[in-house]
Amino acid sequence: MRDAEKLAAPRTVAGHDAVPDYHRPLLAPLTDSIRQLVDATVRTEVDDDELRRAHREIAAIAARLQARQMPGSYGQRVAAGSARFWGNPVVGVRNAIAPPLVIEYDDSGRVSAEFHLGAAYEGPSGLVHGGVSALLLDQILGDAAAAGGKPGMTGTLTLRYRRGTPLGALRAEAWIERVEGFKTFVAGHLLDADGPTVQAEGVFIVPRWARGEAGAGEWAQAMPDRFA
Amino acid sequence: MRDAEKLAAPRTVAGHDAVPDYHRPLLAPLTDSIRQLVDATVRTEVDDDELRRAHREIAAIAARLQARQMPGSYGQRVAAGSARFWGNPVVGVRNAIAPPLVIEYDDSGRVSAEFHLGAAYEGPSGLVHGGVSALLLDQILGDAAAAGGKPGMTGTLTLRYRRGTPLGALRAEAWIERVEGFKTFVAGHLLDADGPTVQAEGVFIVPRWARGEAGAGEWAQAMPDRFA
Repeated sequence: MRDAEKLAAPRTVAGHDAVPDYHRPLLAPLTDSIRQLVDATVRTEVDDDELRRAHREIAAIAARLQARQMPGSYGQRVAAGSARFWGNPVVGVRNAIAPPLVIEYDDSGRVSAEFHLGAAYEGPSGLVHGGVSALLLDQILGDAAAAGGKPGMTGTLTLRYRRGTPLGALRAEAWIERVEGFKTFVAGHLLDADGPTVQAEGVFIVPRWARGEAGAGEWAQAMPDRFA
Repeated sequence: MRDAEKLAAPRTVAGHDAVPDYHRPLLAPLTDSIRQLVDATVRTEVDDDELRRAHREIAAIAARLQARQMPGSYGQRVAAGSARFWGNPVVGVRNAIAPPLVIEYDDSGRVSAEFHLGAAYEGPSGLVHGGVSALLLDQILGDAAAAGGKPGMTGTLTLRYRRGTPLGALRAEAWIERVEGFKTFVAGHLLDADGPTVQAEGVFIVPRWARGEAGAGEWAQAMPDRFA
């Protein structure tokens, strides 16, 4: 866990743009309330006037948050020696699309996450959307590659859907199969209480620009703090 | 387009639960305001008090929408002979996770969508998250399979990332390669202005329970109106 980050005063982040960012404990409840709102909008049955009122109020809040904002996307930032993927749609503390996954690392290099997927992640009735499974597996396989010391971008990703993944409590796991130069071959799966539902294999490749001395340093800086 | 749906009074939906649903023109602006909120929360730089105020207000709105809601997920519903995937995280009019994609069908069976991805879909700095590309491609390949008359669940999905996909204006396309019994083999890609960035191949399989006479009827009912 990132206790240092929780306790630290806001710092200027380095990497892409030098702008301050918030404390995680300030942002997390805001993002979580938006996750609730996303879920509620999928499932609500309130009357039309209530929907219209919610729309007006939400548009006004969004406008207030937009009154001062970074011009582009969040990027990958480094603050106090620790990387921030706060905009990331799988793990980001600023991103209500993210369930979010909290990635755990064990000493063997295996990475895992336990999480809950609700109505906003549904494809076929009662089941996780196949593309959502792919989204989450891409992230966790990439995290396993990074845990091996060679963080990379996805080169190929292959998914085998063994059966439907029910909405609810789920787990994802990933591990490195082998490393060849700048390529890390990773495998993993998504599981419910009865075992694997989707199996994944991926090749993650260190970007060309990050292969030199200087590039590697900058690229590594943008990885989780265990690799900084 | 679904003009009948736009103009019709709310109807009782059939399929999973017989509950009324809203007009699309009432829901779409609400969901879109939440998309704005998701993006704004990734990018905002307002002061701490404004974040706290936004959190309080959003939590209150979510609670109001939750005051009356369906007990589980949205599912796939049929209203006035037309399927509704309103909870779907890629195309759903109720789901702020969805960019959304609006799928276009041409007479050759090719399906496509043009859309914009902003900061909430970012992986590496300035680029679309590899898993988001997988999410969108899974959906559109599945739509191509359905357009061929055999809607199915994802069996396998293989993605080849040729280069980074920049955030911004994008296009996705998919088409059927061949059909073998209950399996439809589909290909597709994601493109920016310079051409394909991610290539995809998928096999979509009609679920076992939907292969008989009765099952096929029920399954087809849950597909877009061109197949109902």
